[in-house]
Amino acid sequence: MKTIDVCLSPELMHLYTVEEKSVVVVDILRATSSMTTAFAHGVESIYPVAKLDDCRNMKEKGYLIAGERDGEKVADFDLGNSPFEYMNESLKGKQVALTTTNGTQAIAKSIGAKEIIIGAFLNLSAVAEHLIKSNNDILIVCAGWKGKVNLEDTIFAGALIEKLKNHFSLACDAPLVAQHLYLCAKDDLVKFLSASSHVKRLNRLNIHEDMEFCLTIDTYKVVPVLVDGILKIR
Amino acid sequence: MKTIDVCLSPELMHLYTVEEKSVVVVDILRATSSMTTAFAHGVESIYPVAKLDDCRNMKEKGYLIAGERDGEKVADFDLGNSPFEYMNESLKGKQVALTTTNGTQAIAKSIGAKEIIIGAFLNLSAVAEHLIKSNNDILIVCAGWKGKVNLEDTIFAGALIEKLKNHFSLACDAPLVAQHLYLCAKDDLVKFLSASSHVKRLNRLNIHEDMEFCLTIDTYKVVPVLVDGILKIR
Repeated sequence: MKTIDVCLSPELMHLYTVEEKSVVVVDILRATSSMTTAFAHGVESIYPVAKLDDCRNMKEKGYLIAGERDGEKVADFDLGNSPFEYMNESLKGKQVALTTTNGTQAIAKSIGAKEIIIGAFLNLSAVAEHLIKSNNDILIVCAGWKGKVNLEDTIFAGALIEKLKNHFSLACDAPLVAQHLYLCAKDDLVKFLSASSHVKRLNRLNIHEDMEFCLTIDTYKVVPVLVDGILKIR
Repeated sequence: MKTIDVCLSPELMHLYTVEEKSVVVVDILRATSSMTTAFAHGVESIYPVAKLDDCRNMKEKGYLIAGERDGEKVADFDLGNSPFEYMNESLKGKQVALTTTNGTQAIAKSIGAKEIIIGAFLNLSAVAEHLIKSNNDILIVCAGWKGKVNLEDTIFAGALIEKLKNHFSLACDAPLVAQHLYLCAKDDLVKFLSASSHVKRLNRLNIHEDMEFCLTIDTYKVVPVLVDGILKIR
């Protein structure tokens, strides 16, 4: 039986190998939720960029530039990091370059994996089905908040493990932590997460609606995959 | 109100400050449980040493030398890392140099704190009372397993937070993770932890009794504190 493991923060990635694995990158609030939403609404590709300036430079190459720092949209960018900004017909067929505080860094640290896919509650079952078919060892990489473990990404890891537990064995304690936490939270994700530090941060930014949407399960069926440094749907 | 935070792995310590804080180092299986047991049975001081050879060199300075690597006693050492080895009248008044896979490394990374104390289920309430009196910001440092997050140290952090929650506010999401996990586990710690990877590792070493003992709450009232690099009781 293949294994499933969880890296609770990108700062722990040096303890894990990614070779031959399916890596699922998760940044529920809000990078991977917004990416999933963008693809579901017809965006053709997303180029994840770690640095703000590198992202800005993609504008002249015909990309829409998108991103946030500390939860707020970058002033001169076309798009921020709210999933609602990506529910727009005018984005159909467009190429987007995206940088976020935590999400794009988590992708960068996963390079070298057999495949890198984007997970969110919004595409939870689609991701689980994809992983069962791929049947590689799995590493879920939680983006966290500036290196620290966060509640929402850990709970997503637990939700995915619940979907996969009959097909994969747990590699270590971190998957158990995630799984138990999800079981505590699952009856009311919004209520459970309202105590989290990042949700408090988002509330200050008046984006409670974003949070509720990002905790919606299986709205979309897209599975974004990183191919040659660019995210596309399969 | 002062805050309480949790560093879930020593590999995340660079994200936290220790200055002006009370740091609680925890390595339930078994370093901090054995240290607590040793002091409760009259050991005078414990010198925590990161490296095996440095520990061995303390022998000629009159110390008993103690330690394990990968859960097993070091062959030529006087003592291993089982709490039962420290329930021995002959250790009364003795000085012990101790090195362990994870616990002593966690202590080394906490240097610079206002105070460093040793926590275990065995002295849970005594540690909580001490922290309430000290009234500093608190950082609980989980020793983990070779850098990875583990179940037993995280649950201890949650148990301590439950004792302190009316006196301190939670700094971040990691304390919430620990607290929820403890609430899942508290009705039967032994059963809950029997799924953990480290307990499986210990079971292979036939030390299930150690595990059960290390999960016993409030057996002792000692609070080991690090003073000038040496652990003593207050």
